[in-house]
Amino acid sequence: MINFKIIFKVLGLLLFLEGFFIFLSAIVSLIYGESDFFALSITSLITVASGLVTWLFTRNEKSKIGKRESYIIVSLVWIIFSLFGSIPFIIHGSIPSYTDAFFETISGFTTTGASILNNIEELPHGLLFWRSITQWLGGMGMILMSLAILPMLGIGGMQLFVAEVPGPTPDKIHPRVKETAKRLWAIYTLFTIAETILLWFGGMDLFDSINHAFTTMATGGYSTKQASVAFYTSPYIQYVITFFMFLAGVNFTLAYFALKLNYKKIWQNEEFRYYIIILASFTLISSIALSLNKDYTSYEKAFRDSIFQVVSIITTTGFATADYTTWGAFLLVLYFIMMFIGGSAGSTGGGIKVMRILLLLKNSYLEFKRLIHPHAIILVRFNKRAVNQSIITNVLAFIVFYIIVFVAGTLFMAFLGLDIESAMGATIASLGNIGPGIGAVGPANNFFQIPDAGKWFLSFLMLMGRLELFTVLILFSPAFWKK
Amino acid sequence: MINFKIIFKVLGLLLFLEGFFIFLSAIVSLIYGESDFFALSITSLITVASGLVTWLFTRNEKSKIGKRESYIIVSLVWIIFSLFGSIPFIIHGSIPSYTDAFFETISGFTTTGASILNNIEELPHGLLFWRSITQWLGGMGMILMSLAILPMLGIGGMQLFVAEVPGPTPDKIHPRVKETAKRLWAIYTLFTIAETILLWFGGMDLFDSINHAFTTMATGGYSTKQASVAFYTSPYIQYVITFFMFLAGVNFTLAYFALKLNYKKIWQNEEFRYYIIILASFTLISSIALSLNKDYTSYEKAFRDSIFQVVSIITTTGFATADYTTWGAFLLVLYFIMMFIGGSAGSTGGGIKVMRILLLLKNSYLEFKRLIHPHAIILVRFNKRAVNQSIITNVLAFIVFYIIVFVAGTLFMAFLGLDIESAMGATIASLGNIGPGIGAVGPANNFFQIPDAGKWFLSFLMLMGRLELFTVLILFSPAFWKK
Repeated sequence: MINFKIIFKVLGLLLFLEGFFIFLSAIVSLIYGESDFFALSITSLITVASGLVTWLFTRNEKSKIGKRESYIIVSLVWIIFSLFGSIPFIIHGSIPSYTDAFFETISGFTTTGASILNNIEELPHGLLFWRSITQWLGGMGMILMSLAILPMLGIGGMQLFVAEVPGPTPDKIHPRVKETAKRLWAIYTLFTIAETILLWFGGMDLFDSINHAFTTMATGGYSTKQASVAFYTSPYIQYVITFFMFLAGVNFTLAYFALKLNYKKIWQNEEFRYYIIILASFTLISSIALSLNKDYTSYEKAFRDSIFQVVSIITTTGFATADYTTWGAFLLVLYFIMMFIGGSAGSTGGGIKVMRILLLLKNSYLEFKRLIHPHAIILVRFNKRAVNQSIITNVLAFIVFYIIVFVAGTLFMAFLGLDIESAMGATIASLGNIGPGIGAVGPANNFFQIPDAGKWFLSFLMLMGRLELFTVLILFSPAFWKK
Repeated sequence: MINFKIIFKVLGLLLFLEGFFIFLSAIVSLIYGESDFFALSITSLITVASGLVTWLFTRNEKSKIGKRESYIIVSLVWIIFSLFGSIPFIIHGSIPSYTDAFFETISGFTTTGASILNNIEELPHGLLFWRSITQWLGGMGMILMSLAILPMLGIGGMQLFVAEVPGPTPDKIHPRVKETAKRLWAIYTLFTIAETILLWFGGMDLFDSINHAFTTMATGGYSTKQASVAFYTSPYIQYVITFFMFLAGVNFTLAYFALKLNYKKIWQNEEFRYYIIILASFTLISSIALSLNKDYTSYEKAFRDSIFQVVSIITTTGFATADYTTWGAFLLVLYFIMMFIGGSAGSTGGGIKVMRILLLLKNSYLEFKRLIHPHAIILVRFNKRAVNQSIITNVLAFIVFYIIVFVAGTLFMAFLGLDIESAMGATIASLGNIGPGIGAVGPANNFFQIPDAGKWFLSFLMLMGRLELFTVLILFSPAFWKK
């Protein structure tokens, strides 16, 4: 039997947290004296009250959280947060359609950054702040989830690679998760503050600096400007954001080692090395191709637009300073390919993740050796250790599922009337938690025109992508519910 | 050391075979008294003479053919055949560019069916016949390769599934391969004759009936008409071809059981069952969607166009009676997805193959069970037997490689200036040995406009697809050449 009481207890407690952040946004609104104060403060009350009622009914439940309960909590929390989080947009009236409000909110929490807003500057500061906070919370949640909870559930095959992760012995989980979480959140907050200061220093106003820092560190990509980061023509600002997007795509345990000046551990990390190699290679190819483009007279501009867009897409942030869909077929395909990579494991980035791509390529290459030496046992090695075959199977199954979901999603979006390019773009932009895609949902456009059914479907894809597919899909498997 | 002498001996002997079939085409030319007699007869001489000279220099080599030699022979034979096979088109002048002539010929031998001809009816009968023969020989070669040679080399993970296949004990291979080959070729020839008669009976002229039978059974798709099978408006002819395309996509050992009236063995074959389910499902979806199209007033026409195109694409034949690229985004994506499926293992069809797709889906589904029961050993079952995990890894690695090659191919074609849709279409149409793709290389167009570099690249993709990727790729791995 699944213990629903404990599930509700945890969800109730988490609602307090959400209510607190909505309350913070209400304070921002108060400072600016704008029209969204009522919407935010009332939602904050509703959220905290709902959490309180749930907690009152379930507080006596003291049993441990089992594995199956964890799957359900981890999946439900994003939906519940989005349900409550979308209320301020509705009450205030700035997003009149409920579908749109939910889409905008879950796109925030999943750090996707796909927006339906046609005039972002029109939004009052409180709502803008809340919109950025959804991403920041989502990123924070993701770090905790990917480094502590998911490995415990066997999802993602990351168990072996994350030094700081608690082992699968249930009694040891609680204290170590707490310890890990504390450190990682401290780093996350520290980086956010550092970026805020650097952006502010570069001439961005404080409010926008905070918001962009929130959404950069979450690899979210919500901007307070309709034109995204292209609004800021300062190369300094663009490079600062590029650097922090890069950081946000790194495994946060490595950042922890960096702060402890343990650089050896960082360079020994294969995923990190390849993350850099991948970013550098795509930047190089993109900037060479772009410098041949007659619209680009300066190589610095070609380089800057390339590195910004490459880092933004690969880390799945989704900020834009230029529109790669206008750069010709070759770069369009190149950027589309990048959408399938994603950040490092244990970062706030979405997508398939560098580690999985690496294991995939290594295993595929070794398949040749296996064919030539059919009787030898040839294992994939990662960080100099042999990787269990069951993890390889899991990684391969993940990627296969990812592609199946992508293909099915494209078919569904085409069924709703999108052309093939836009259907592929909208699907991968949502599934990979990127934000902008290609076609009608490229960086110069948004998701407003997508039919409602498509918006709900894409919301589901965002959730699936954020939860590493299996966490959500397992809930639909009969094997999960029986016994 | 690799024994190149034995490689050349085998290739020399195979050149006799090719020379013989070019000679047959010369006889066809003689019957029609057309301008291609000289080109065909002189090429026949050149080919036989080259085979003879090679054989004279290598005839004393009596050693057994090793595994590495087999890889090289199996890869080289298609290239050598295409080099010689393209000569008649050049000498006759009907295909003036050598790139085009090679493309057309390797597209024939690999049973792809992608053409560069803008006016097929203009070709004399001898060359048309030779063009069809390339496909028929390619199909015949493929059956032998996929059922006898490749499993012996560990390629394709088909070792377990093909009852008639010789085991990996080297001393037993020769007699059993010969036996297997004889039976399968008898069936292949029988089906070809049966189709010829049925088409002739339906009003197609004898020459065209023979040619279409050749290219149907090979899942090749070369037609003697520029308009492909759409030239024949008779529903009877279209249904006959549909049926034989279906047959050609079935594992030929099953056809053998069918002729022995052993129907139980057929229904017990999971791949066959799912092959039918897949074809039926796509036909159903396509015909429902098509019957809603205002251009279709008759449901029979919607059904016929659907079943013909679905069977043609999934079996990778590539005949066309209608242009699915004009049927709207949904059907376009649907047909594009079908291009990744392919025929059954041990058929003449290309693509990923139903068996691999099945193992992939089964393994992915079982990954949930593995997550829920992490300590249980959960194996994929196929035809009621447990499948070794190493075969699953091989299948997954294959599919991953397939996708990598597809993506890299698309990028390269986009680099040559094709738009994203055409780049994807040309790549999968070649890699999957289908023929027509989407975009600028859809069923109503051809490959003439592709730049030369693209034609050579696509030729290479056809070869890779035909040889189940690994056979070709392994030759590029350092591990293959050392020791």
